Amino acid sequence: MAPQPHIKLYTDSTPNGIKITTALEELGLHYELEHVDISTLRQKEPWYLEINPNGRIPAIVDTFDDGQSIRVFEGGSILQYLTDRYDPEHKLSFPKGSREYYECNNWLFFQHGGIGPMQGQASHFLRYAPTKIQYGIDRYVTETKRLYNVLDVQLSKSKSGFLVGDHISIADIAALSWVIFGPYVDVPLDLFPNLQKWEAMLSARSAITKGFHIPKVLGIKSDDPEGAAKYQKHHADWVFKGMQADQENFCKK
Amino acid sequence: MAPQPHIKLYTDSTPNGIKITTALEELGLHYELEHVDISTLRQKEPWYLEINPNGRIPAIVDTFDDGQSIRVFEGGSILQYLTDRYDPEHKLSFPKGSREYYECNNWLFFQHGGIGPMQGQASHFLRYAPTKIQYGIDRYVTETKRLYNVLDVQLSKSKSGFLVGDHISIADIAALSWVIFGPYVDVPLDLFPNLQKWEAMLSARSAITKGFHIPKVLGIKSDDPEGAAKYQKHHADWVFKGMQADQENFCKK
Repeated sequence: MAPQPHIKLYTDSTPNGIKITTALEELGLHYELEHVDISTLRQKEPWYLEINPNGRIPAIVDTFDDGQSIRVFEGGSILQYLTDRYDPEHKLSFPKGSREYYECNNWLFFQHGGIGPMQGQASHFLRYAPTKIQYGIDRYVTETKRLYNVLDVQLSKSKSGFLVGDHISIADIAALSWVIFGPYVDVPLDLFPNLQKWEAMLSARSAITKGFHIPKVLGIKSDDPEGAAKYQKHHADWVFKGMQADQENFCKK
Repeated sequence: MAPQPHIKLYTDSTPNGIKITTALEELGLHYELEHVDISTLRQKEPWYLEINPNGRIPAIVDTFDDGQSIRVFEGGSILQYLTDRYDPEHKLSFPKGSREYYECNNWLFFQHGGIGPMQGQASHFLRYAPTKIQYGIDRYVTETKRLYNVLDVQLSKSKSGFLVGDHISIADIAALSWVIFGPYVDVPLDLFPNLQKWEAMLSARSAITKGFHIPKVLGIKSDDPEGAAKYQKHHADWVFKGMQADQENFCKK
């Protein structure tokens, strides 16, 4: 029998945040929610750095086998932890050590090291940078398109319509959380027909729809420029403040 | 008994490349080496995209339990695969499902989604971008320092001197491959005393020293500005060519 979770999730409504809420909802796991409003830079406070020393959301704390608490941070690490411990039926995973298990990891790391950071930079230069730097915009929007194309090609070869094997997995969940933000960085999904179909199929799942809007209504789907403007306004301010604080902290260095 | 590897490694001499050669040398595994000279953009050729659809090094092909070949791409995924299958003595890993196992994953993903991509952007703006964009340089050099500081704080709390638990692991290996390139992006390691000590300890290991220089002599250690200049010259050209090709491919989009 799988161990019983006592998960507390520290998160906010961002691409990396909804990666975990959608996974938890798909797995049907009970969890306690702590909204860390990143616009207040609460994620940089000492108590939180004990949970995630990198000062980012999401992170979880769970009760481990020894009865003590355990911290898990970084989206990909959390998704592996959750499926490793609480997905014996392989709703979002594949049997350990199987071919699909390793292929799923390939795509999980592909999202974590590629789509996430690069699309994040596209958001920065397009939406948050205090001055317009066309080189940065072009560089990261192009890279986002290149990465989406990699997904599109993979999906064009998939019989099931999922990235790996015959069912949804954490590989899909991780990529989806960023892909729904494609239009926010001027990458419309209809450029990538297989990806667009995949996005529509996944986003229609009730657990995923629910996860999108925890802790707050996301308001940033493809067809919602007003939601996007609101999201941008909310984040531009604190991104700039955070950047200034980092510059001050580390320019002495 | 652990299965027998038949690993073919596709790689070049870069931070992500040496992550795998140092791990293979530490594990003492036999492997066949295929030098993919990324300056020729060979990593974008169709045969290679079958192995890594993202068109990047490193990647491996191994013989799987069923006798057929299996592909593994993305540095973090390869490190997990290697230790999962070929490290029963936990030379570079921790027992599956243990606390250290999950904490090791936290730091593995921290490198994969943070240090790697962000320090990579610092290299780009400092060393490869065709025009000098101070905003890009400041943004990514600062972020690299912030991330190194996260490692430094973690190491300051470590009794063993390693990132996780009481011995070296893939968490150290992954981070080290980028940290030795710190000076290349104007981040001298003596700003971070614990990290500097850790780097010296790891780099002195014979397996790691050996791995650094496969397939080619790296020539880019902290105290080697001539090696750095040579490395920069070698990479600047193809980075620009690759970027132009991507712009052309995806600007239609």
